[in-house]
Amino acid sequence: MDAEIIRAAQELRERTVARRRDFHKHAEAAWTEFRTASIVAKTLQGLGYQVLTGDEVVDPREMMGVPSAAELERHFRRALEQGADAAWAEKMRGGKTGVVGVMRFAKPGPTVALRVDMDANDLIEAAETKHRPFCEGFASVNKGAMHACGHDGHTATGLGVAEVLVSLKDRLAGTVKLIFQPAEEGVRGAKAMVARGVVDDVKYVVGAHLGVNLKKNGQVACRTEGFLATTKVDAAFTGVPAHAGAAPENGRNAILAAATATLNLHAIPRHSQGASRINVGVIQGGAGRNVIPPNAVIKLETRGATTVINDYVYGEAVRIIEAAAAMHGCTVAMQLMGGAAGCENDAALVERIQQVVKRQGLFSEIVPAGNIGGSEDCTYFMERVQKNGGQAAFVMIGTKLAAGHHDSFFDFDEEALVPGIALLAGVAAELLTKG
Amino acid sequence: MDAEIIRAAQELRERTVARRRDFHKHAEAAWTEFRTASIVAKTLQGLGYQVLTGDEVVDPREMMGVPSAAELERHFRRALEQGADAAWAEKMRGGKTGVVGVMRFAKPGPTVALRVDMDANDLIEAAETKHRPFCEGFASVNKGAMHACGHDGHTATGLGVAEVLVSLKDRLAGTVKLIFQPAEEGVRGAKAMVARGVVDDVKYVVGAHLGVNLKKNGQVACRTEGFLATTKVDAAFTGVPAHAGAAPENGRNAILAAATATLNLHAIPRHSQGASRINVGVIQGGAGRNVIPPNAVIKLETRGATTVINDYVYGEAVRIIEAAAAMHGCTVAMQLMGGAAGCENDAALVERIQQVVKRQGLFSEIVPAGNIGGSEDCTYFMERVQKNGGQAAFVMIGTKLAAGHHDSFFDFDEEALVPGIALLAGVAAELLTKG
Amino acid sequence: MDAEIIRAAQELRERTVARRRDFHKHAEAAWTEFRTASIVAKTLQGLGYQVLTGDEVVDPREMMGVPSAAELERHFRRALEQGADAAWAEKMRGGKTGVVGVMRFAKPGPTVALRVDMDANDLIEAAETKHRPFCEGFASVNKGAMHACGHDGHTATGLGVAEVLVSLKDRLAGTVKLIFQPAEEGVRGAKAMVARGVVDDVKYVVGAHLGVNLKKNGQVACRTEGFLATTKVDAAFTGVPAHAGAAPENGRNAILAAATATLNLHAIPRHSQGASRINVGVIQGGAGRNVIPPNAVIKLETRGATTVINDYVYGEAVRIIEAAAAMHGCTVAMQLMGGAAGCENDAALVERIQQVVKRQGLFSEIVPAGNIGGSEDCTYFMERVQKNGGQAAFVMIGTKLAAGHHDSFFDFDEEALVPGIALLAGVAAELLTKG
Amino acid sequence: MDAEIIRAAQELRERTVARRRDFHKHAEAAWTEFRTASIVAKTLQGLGYQVLTGDEVVDPREMMGVPSAAELERHFRRALEQGADAAWAEKMRGGKTGVVGVMRFAKPGPTVALRVDMDANDLIEAAETKHRPFCEGFASVNKGAMHACGHDGHTATGLGVAEVLVSLKDRLAGTVKLIFQPAEEGVRGAKAMVARGVVDDVKYVVGAHLGVNLKKNGQVACRTEGFLATTKVDAAFTGVPAHAGAAPENGRNAILAAATATLNLHAIPRHSQGASRINVGVIQGGAGRNVIPPNAVIKLETRGATTVINDYVYGEAVRIIEAAAAMHGCTVAMQLMGGAAGCENDAALVERIQQVVKRQGLFSEIVPAGNIGGSEDCTYFMERVQKNGGQAAFVMIGTKLAAGHHDSFFDFDEEALVPGIALLAGVAAELLTKG
Repeated sequence: MDAEIIRAAQELRERTVARRRDFHKHAEAAWTEFRTASIVAKTLQGLGYQVLTGDEVVDPREMMGVPSAAELERHFRRALEQGADAAWAEKMRGGKTGVVGVMRFAKPGPTVALRVDMDANDLIEAAETKHRPFCEGFASVNKGAMHACGHDGHTATGLGVAEVLVSLKDRLAGTVKLIFQPAEEGVRGAKAMVARGVVDDVKYVVGAHLGVNLKKNGQVACRTEGFLATTKVDAAFTGVPAHAGAAPENGRNAILAAATATLNLHAIPRHSQGASRINVGVIQGGAGRNVIPPNAVIKLETRGATTVINDYVYGEAVRIIEAAAAMHGCTVAMQLMGGAAGCENDAALVERIQQVVKRQGLFSEIVPAGNIGGSEDCTYFMERVQKNGGQAAFVMIGTKLAAGHHDSFFDFDEEALVPGIALLAGVAAELLTKG
Repeated sequence: MDAEIIRAAQELRERTVARRRDFHKHAEAAWTEFRTASIVAKTLQGLGYQVLTGDEVVDPREMMGVPSAAELERHFRRALEQGADAAWAEKMRGGKTGVVGVMRFAKPGPTVALRVDMDANDLIEAAETKHRPFCEGFASVNKGAMHACGHDGHTATGLGVAEVLVSLKDRLAGTVKLIFQPAEEGVRGAKAMVARGVVDDVKYVVGAHLGVNLKKNGQVACRTEGFLATTKVDAAFTGVPAHAGAAPENGRNAILAAATATLNLHAIPRHSQGASRINVGVIQGGAGRNVIPPNAVIKLETRGATTVINDYVYGEAVRIIEAAAAMHGCTVAMQLMGGAAGCENDAALVERIQQVVKRQGLFSEIVPAGNIGGSEDCTYFMERVQKNGGQAAFVMIGTKLAAGHHDSFFDFDEEALVPGIALLAGVAAELLTKG
Repeated sequence: MDAEIIRAAQELRERTVARRRDFHKHAEAAWTEFRTASIVAKTLQGLGYQVLTGDEVVDPREMMGVPSAAELERHFRRALEQGADAAWAEKMRGGKTGVVGVMRFAKPGPTVALRVDMDANDLIEAAETKHRPFCEGFASVNKGAMHACGHDGHTATGLGVAEVLVSLKDRLAGTVKLIFQPAEEGVRGAKAMVARGVVDDVKYVVGAHLGVNLKKNGQVACRTEGFLATTKVDAAFTGVPAHAGAAPENGRNAILAAATATLNLHAIPRHSQGASRINVGVIQGGAGRNVIPPNAVIKLETRGATTVINDYVYGEAVRIIEAAAAMHGCTVAMQLMGGAAGCENDAALVERIQQVVKRQGLFSEIVPAGNIGGSEDCTYFMERVQKNGGQAAFVMIGTKLAAGHHDSFFDFDEEALVPGIALLAGVAAELLTKG
Repeated sequence: MDAEIIRAAQELRERTVARRRDFHKHAEAAWTEFRTASIVAKTLQGLGYQVLTGDEVVDPREMMGVPSAAELERHFRRALEQGADAAWAEKMRGGKTGVVGVMRFAKPGPTVALRVDMDANDLIEAAETKHRPFCEGFASVNKGAMHACGHDGHTATGLGVAEVLVSLKDRLAGTVKLIFQPAEEGVRGAKAMVARGVVDDVKYVVGAHLGVNLKKNGQVACRTEGFLATTKVDAAFTGVPAHAGAAPENGRNAILAAATATLNLHAIPRHSQGASRINVGVIQGGAGRNVIPPNAVIKLETRGATTVINDYVYGEAVRIIEAAAAMHGCTVAMQLMGGAAGCENDAALVERIQQVVKRQGLFSEIVPAGNIGGSEDCTYFMERVQKNGGQAAFVMIGTKLAAGHHDSFFDFDEEALVPGIALLAGVAAELLTKG
């Protein structure tokens, strides 16, 4: 079957590149992937998958860092103008742009999930001739949204895998779920799909990413463990204004609350069991130089080598923020803006992926994923599957990069797409034949 | 002469109201008073005054809190469109909108200065029928600029005084200087005029304001001492960005520097010799939740019951801000945005003003100015005159108010204008006849 | 009657000096004035006063900053060894060393209270020949206790007044209360006597002090208003220890709580209605360099120009301290260690005192009391009397000083004692004859 | 040779226990090990070793956390009274209590160093019957000093090794250095010996410790890598006192400087390359509740998984402390109180130690050293040797413990001593025969 998969993947080369470039050109940031997601849905439907989207796969109560209703609506209309499938997009209204393609094979077997992400970054794409997407006419037409993290490639890969698996369907046993997640940037989207139960019946889940530390074509990492568990939160302090010269005692100083919180947040004790992080990345407050400041917002994130460590840091942070508000007679409202779990890969599954890599022979070296330091919310899917007794792994696929991730000159080598399709389809076939 | 002055002032009633409404309708905020100031200059010239403006009366190195060049240019063009005198306005280019009208009388005598201010507030004027300027068609046509502190009335009063004094000129001895100051809001303008030497030859200076604590027509305060000396300053911290998850140790955290500065600024010790104040009214910083913040700005002000106390607080503030930057490996740039001195009134001059009030009989009660708590940069003129051995006083003129100062519904009773013109002209005549 | 009072006071000159030196030599610090107070009690009794002490005049629940039971007992035994009156001292056991001498005169009239204080400072007296008490053999024999604030003189004055009034008793109407207060240093004693109702029936109360800003014999101030209301409090934070290397996350850091409290306490906003103060004067915490600190204590005081302002600062302080503890998962226990009210003098009473000064002719100049900046708990008696509709004043009596108050070389000129006795007796006689 | 070594070690059983108990009974804390060290010197001399001590092996400029001269002298005299060798002790005066025994063998070969430590803890030993040293009469007679970390056992082991090696000397090649280090508690002593060049010629260095995570007899760890590099430092802030009520503006507040430093120290960013730690374990400051505090001390430590990380944290700490002083107009003096490096074991040497363990058969299991979290300044010797191209390792020897290290009931099982002697002598012999 390996040879068939490889051939099928190779035949998808042009179509995959075209899809990637189409998604790249119509880049859509988190929760606004109406065009991308509706095309994914329509394509999966055309291939024979049962397609779930909108409320079926996204719990709106758990969506984090969602744009305003006006923003969502504006991007919804833009998507329609740019060729979104209106019927599918309609189901996604309000940002519920997750898509899951399900195929149940005739023979009984495990449920296997593959997960890719679809959203672009909030970035203005470079418009210089040294930037290939610009030269070749597929740079983003949506100013302020740019695929600078490879998710356009991930989505195209996911559709390629969908096609390959259809071609093998008579020989597969069990169920495959192809998860197309919105809003991975800022780790905002996975939680709402997990909360809806999307992977509750899954025995194996595999996520994938292009590049990161693997900057050569031919490299692959079959386990990725450096992701930090994280929580993103905004804390908005509200005090009472007063004239700073005439009646300072009548004020309740929200900037003092925020400043005290900030200092003490950074002073949260290190955890002896592994890396922890805290960052107040943004602060904004005040109503005028001569007014006791009645408002202040801090935007922060906590991280930990494991979910336990991140939970520890986040728990400390909440207590500190609430106490800082109380200290200055202010109130505080906290809003979750993103989150991801820590990441463990199951050795048995990693081993099976490595076997597929070796059998297919499309990668020249299996390397470690290296130090990550960042976060990835595929970990929520993995954690849920592992809690239910299943296995999880996260694969990195090497590719030459024109510039680093999240850089306005980011671009990857499209030659890395076919091996990725073959690998993921191969892993699915392995699990859907041998259980 | 008192009767003549009163009559002359009363005859100016309609013209003064018309001027006030014209200025109100074409409200211009600090350093952009091109229309107002050019009309003042042209009027003074027409009355026979020597008129100084632009570089002659404003030291550009000491202008504080000046809008950007683009902003200045935009408002300059607006002024021309709204009827500014092009020739005079041209001399004021770059925001140098101060005007001084000088008249040297035949007989020798002291130099007497009267000072009024011309700028509007950064405020959107109320557009409701209960707001008289709106009803009667003289609300500001310049959105975001509104005369909500009575400076329109002050400017009209200054021109009225100019007319009255011309009518008496054969009987006066010495020199009169009528100072029309820009940018009193934020206490930004006086320093640059004092630095240019505008009052270096002045023996008596008198400033005036409508309303504040005197909220009834007929009230007048001949001494005003509650003004707090103040310094307004922005401090911009610059650090080094770094990925907060992957390499926090490579960052230099400007928000931590700003937060530490903020807390310690508020902890500056009280001064035993009188009131002191400190306020960090605005804070802004950061480049993203997951980035060690490379920048942060705090906008603060210090105040003191006297210049000495304010200088103490400001000196402490500078040391704290610089140390907070050094503490976190950041640099900091501080920019003065405004300032005012403390305020002492000379008893002898106050007594002479009270005598004029009593002789004229236009006010029904002389009252104390009450607790001020705010600042006023006329104090810079007063301090300079006093340092040179002269005398200074600041007068408050009562008026019914529709709403408090700096409120979008602010309005005063125009009946208060004529008594104000008569009083200031009377005080000038007193000093320019008796020395 | 003035002449009689003056003569009587002058006849007490030697006895008063002897008493002062005896008290000076046997200096007793706050709440341990067993010898001093028992001698006062015995003397008053001998003069025919009704004498109240111990629980009769001190509410033990309101005693602040009391030494340990062992300390009290040690000083009690020392007092007996040094000639205390055993029977009276016994009633004072536990530190209840306040004494009130009451004399009800035959004729009806107002109740007039005079208040003096008895305690020494926690200071080692200078043992050099330039220090007169050392030279002349009356330096303190109680190491660590020294009369460096003149309370020895106050106590001797109080007894002198008691004698003078007895000599006039047939001509007086009403009741006199001579209040001998313990523990004025640290403003710890008055509250407990006021709480027991000692001045609840008093119409006039007068307090007095030697020196302060009046550093010449012959000076007197009949009103003293610069005293700041104050609250002294200790806050003890309790956290959880942990090894700082092996398990920092298990600790609860009491030093961080104390440091955060300290910074934020100093940042309490100024009050627009008058002077405020805050000082964390002492901090102590920790269990070892490599242990997350499980404990920390801060010793602080708040002050205000008025009781209202001090209450504001203290209220803010309590909230900040409690929030700082909560912020770091600690608990905090606060203990009141001292307190005093603000101080207003009733103009009518001040005027009557000035009349006495002028009639007696023993002082050469009536001066203002000057800037005080410190606190005095006589204010609690004054505030209570004023709340009940009575009048209060505080008198300063000038005297040459060898060194400043609370200096180990402090000494005053004993020539200042007789005029003080005459004045206070004269004021009492004035009030007890004219009502 | 293994069998001989084992037999020789076993014959030393009683003598070693006696030595250990003698050292235990006469426990001497850091830098005061005059009795212990002089006995060590005398014994080594008796065995034929060249003995270096005092200035020969300790650089006084690099001694950290040394007691006062008076303390040193007091303990020196105590040591003489308790049987120290007067001649040797005299050379150690001033705390220079390090001892090195050197033996150069006839045949050429490498220089091999073994390092043990000699100091006791600052602890009052338990005086209860359940505590064996108390029961059996060898509890510390020096109140406040107790061997609660097994260094008595280490010293006895070192002397045992010295004896065994003498018995083998004709067959050894090269040089052996037996290093007896003072002041390991608080990691204060190694630096001064390394600075004197004690290990500059050493090719192999091996350190050893009893217990820690190995709480069973028969366990041994041949590599120990969890030690954190550390720096211990005291920072003393000096400000200016002032009366907190009367003239707060005249003070320079050292407690505010210390509190600001403390908060910001704990906020030092985490390091992405491994564990970091910071702890302000002790704070003390102030002169009285009503005095602006003129002084404050913080006692802190930094740690890092590697020397590089600790150096990073310490560098940040120095900058923060200096800036906090400057911020409040204070000065600060910093004094190094201790330090240790990170710890890497050379795999080749570890392997050879494991071979010795296996050949001798005295330990039942080779285990990992486990998570340490603490620091050990043997690492300075190791780091120096490694920098010179040599190899280093640190061995843990299991023993049943009566209570944890640094507990007043600490005791270990003396049966662990003989296997330790045999192992260390065996390792030395291995290296001194095979190079």
